[in-house]
Amino acid sequence: MGDPVKRTELATTPEPPYFAVIFASVRTAQDDEGYAAAADRMAQLASEQPGYLGVDSVRGMDGVGITVSYWSSEASIAAWRRHAEHTILREQGRKSWYSQYELRVARIDRAYGFVRQSGPAPDPAPLDR
Amino acid sequence: MGDPVKRTELATTPEPPYFAVIFASVRTAQDDEGYAAAADRMAQLASEQPGYLGVDSVRGMDGVGITVSYWSSEASIAAWRRHAEHTILREQGRKSWYSQYELRVARIDRAYGFVRQSGPAPDPAPLDR
Repeated sequence: MGDPVKRTELATTPEPPYFAVIFASVRTAQDDEGYAAAADRMAQLASEQPGYLGVDSVRGMDGVGITVSYWSSEASIAAWRRHAEHTILREQGRKSWYSQYELRVARIDRAYGFVRQSGPAPDPAPLDR
Repeated sequence: MGDPVKRTELATTPEPPYFAVIFASVRTAQDDEGYAAAADRMAQLASEQPGYLGVDSVRGMDGVGITVSYWSSEASIAAWRRHAEHTILREQGRKSWYSQYELRVARIDRAYGFVRQSGPAPDPAPLDR
């Protein structure tokens, strides 16, 4: 799970409009190590692509995960989809890592953010649940 | 965390176009019980609103969560935003439950799904990590 003391922060994105890929998935119980290595590699590779704006990603204890990656254009999403290494790993995902997934391509038209400025600070320890 | 044996399934949505609200958040370490009760209540209320199509929601051990709710129109999203009980709980969210959040309203233009039809079945136990 990485360094448990570090608070993960959310992606910072520009003013809309921009685009997003919403990837909701259910993991099998197979090949956790191979999956983790591939997920890290894909996160790194995606971040190097033209048009990449950021990512938010969470996986819960029940194996359900949601990753939302943000992109400046539909063309940048299409180019990432065609990336050779990404294409190979998608195949591996269907073979071993996922029992189900849904991928949605979206246009973000409006966005609102909130960051706590005062009051009780978030606990730096991981949530105990 | 609910029944650990039940596999959560992903939302089933119609053919695009439809709309989504992507809510990425970081929980404070405060008021887990109040938060859980409010989250359940909001999930129930949302599901009763006109235009609601479904939801995918995950929160990780580090306090980061992503909830994506799906809607048939932007008008249905706007009406849910104005719902009185929802408005009150948003205020409570900023006061106690969230250290940060980003809410994005999106139009879904394309979607692809995958469901495992053969091969090793997903393990019914929760993932051990």
